[in-house]
Amino acid sequence: MTEAAPTPLDDALPQHVERVLAGYLDQRRTEVLGVDPAVAQAVDALAGFVLGGGKRLRPTFAWWGWRGAGGDPSGEHAQGVLTAIASLELIQACALVHDDLMDASSTRRGRPTVHVEFARAHAARGWSGPPARFGAAVAILVGDLAQVWADDMFHSALLPEGAHARAAEPWRAMRTEVLAGQYLDVQAQASGDASEGTALRIDRFKTAAYTVERPLHLGAAIGGADPRVLSAYRRYGADIGVAFQLRDDLLGVFGDPQVTGKPAGDDLREGKRTLLVAAALQRAEQRGDRAAQDAVRTALGDPDLDGAGLDRVRSVLSDLGAVQVVEQRIAALTGSALDALDAEPVAEPGRSALFELAERATRRAW
Amino acid sequence: MTEAAPTPLDDALPQHVERVLAGYLDQRRTEVLGVDPAVAQAVDALAGFVLGGGKRLRPTFAWWGWRGAGGDPSGEHAQGVLTAIASLELIQACALVHDDLMDASSTRRGRPTVHVEFARAHAARGWSGPPARFGAAVAILVGDLAQVWADDMFHSALLPEGAHARAAEPWRAMRTEVLAGQYLDVQAQASGDASEGTALRIDRFKTAAYTVERPLHLGAAIGGADPRVLSAYRRYGADIGVAFQLRDDLLGVFGDPQVTGKPAGDDLREGKRTLLVAAALQRAEQRGDRAAQDAVRTALGDPDLDGAGLDRVRSVLSDLGAVQVVEQRIAALTGSALDALDAEPVAEPGRSALFELAERATRRAW
Repeated sequence: MTEAAPTPLDDALPQHVERVLAGYLDQRRTEVLGVDPAVAQAVDALAGFVLGGGKRLRPTFAWWGWRGAGGDPSGEHAQGVLTAIASLELIQACALVHDDLMDASSTRRGRPTVHVEFARAHAARGWSGPPARFGAAVAILVGDLAQVWADDMFHSALLPEGAHARAAEPWRAMRTEVLAGQYLDVQAQASGDASEGTALRIDRFKTAAYTVERPLHLGAAIGGADPRVLSAYRRYGADIGVAFQLRDDLLGVFGDPQVTGKPAGDDLREGKRTLLVAAALQRAEQRGDRAAQDAVRTALGDPDLDGAGLDRVRSVLSDLGAVQVVEQRIAALTGSALDALDAEPVAEPGRSALFELAERATRRAW
Repeated sequence: MTEAAPTPLDDALPQHVERVLAGYLDQRRTEVLGVDPAVAQAVDALAGFVLGGGKRLRPTFAWWGWRGAGGDPSGEHAQGVLTAIASLELIQACALVHDDLMDASSTRRGRPTVHVEFARAHAARGWSGPPARFGAAVAILVGDLAQVWADDMFHSALLPEGAHARAAEPWRAMRTEVLAGQYLDVQAQASGDASEGTALRIDRFKTAAYTVERPLHLGAAIGGADPRVLSAYRRYGADIGVAFQLRDDLLGVFGDPQVTGKPAGDDLREGKRTLLVAAALQRAEQRGDRAAQDAVRTALGDPDLDGAGLDRVRSVLSDLGAVQVVEQRIAALTGSALDALDAEPVAEPGRSALFELAERATRRAW
């Protein structure tokens, strides 16, 4: 365990991630201009999306995973590590652009989603065919491009000898797990599977593995971490990742739109299967409370759920004790995650940063 | 240049590619079962698609590119090379599954497309939400999974020292070029850009680079080819690839559905921008032949174009000399491709195989 003073890279990681992404996208844009200048529009849409916002959560966990494994931010490989972990934002761009299309979402971060932006451009130019179909095609291709470039960027990163081979497992697992989790989510929404088990399995793979566990694993693998550190990371990542999602679920129903940046209740309107909803339905059934059951089931997937309706569901969720169930689960997961981290030789300042990230991810000002 | 007797790998390449793909998909299926058994349905859809047909054209060009660079099919790296080139079929699966969704195609190879298959399953189970939306979501995810697994499979291949580094350029370029070409195609169809230049640029990137030039480049890079061989391959690949697409365009309008496996005229009904159409429109304009221009423009993108209408367009395309323009272009491209190949030291039996492939790709019984 070494004690090291924070460095500029540590302090301004999101900015460094953005700088590296901007440089990479600019380089690929030039390459694509060689195919046809028109293709630059797709790249510009991707760059606007990637550089237009985001918490850089996955690169942050990967970076601190690497730092906690003894990675040196002033060493010769720090820039290569930065490139490798910045590529996670391109995977995320693919996931979000494709998700927005699947969910038919019209805005993200206060801007039109990619499929909506291109559908509007199509309509404005009076092009032929249905604008929505054009928008969907472009969103599929922009997401595909992001996925392909994520791989290219990751594999092009100059890492220490053997690091790419060590990182193959988390890289492979992460990208498959998020798609598997997303598939489960899509299927559960369609089939009406509202069980706690399914909700937690979706949280485990779509969020926890992809957002925390595997990014930490990736950073650790690049840094050649001790197996004990790796195992602590994976436990911490699985637990904090699920807790993060559970907090997100609570904010989705009870959060202040001014803080969360999205309309309260949208998760309910979209019919999202969460532990919160699963716990409420289970408790209502156990109590034989048909009115409560109906109130939750009716709200779930109702695109016209209004403020009064949302207030009623909030009361039902609280009265059934579902909110408390989720809060207790968040607390328990956070506790076990920190215990796991505490027991192993994670290097400072990685250890402190991961403690702080656990706090931020589960209390959430962001 | 060595003379080598054909080996089983050379003779039964498609079967070997399929065997390796089946093994890889089976292994990943087991891994995904650990997330949730339900996800196996997505993997089964992908496996059914990948193993259910296809000419294995891209692995074939990559293989012969490697053989022409002196690759030894009985050497220790042959299986690794087979794995690397088989992964091209997963890129192709992503491209086709996503294309079918973008084009709203309902059948491929006589079977329902992925989005249609899952939409039907959704409807049959009486699930909630629109079946088409569920089908689209699954097709997006299945395509994404194929793309991600293509990268994993390629990078997991056991290749000779330095081969992965050499192969990075064609691997990167190929995956970007096909998406860039597809974007151009989608945009040209929407904007009504019917120029010869755009049609040829789409052929160049969406088909030639992706199907012939870069697979050959990839095989050559893995085999550590002489720069002269590489440059011959790239010239051959660009030319044969475009000629292949031009033949496909002619077959799409004039071909026998019994042989091509798709309804004659579908390219016209879909409004596909081809050199054939571009040449016809340009010639009609030059001649001031408004009737011919209208006949082509009206048929293009008309989903209800019937047999009589198709016959009329066929006559117009022939009478304008557009068919002859395309035939001449195919012949010229094939000639320059073979000249390029002939001038450089491509090893046998790679050289002979590439001559034969040029013939098959541009005359096309397949």
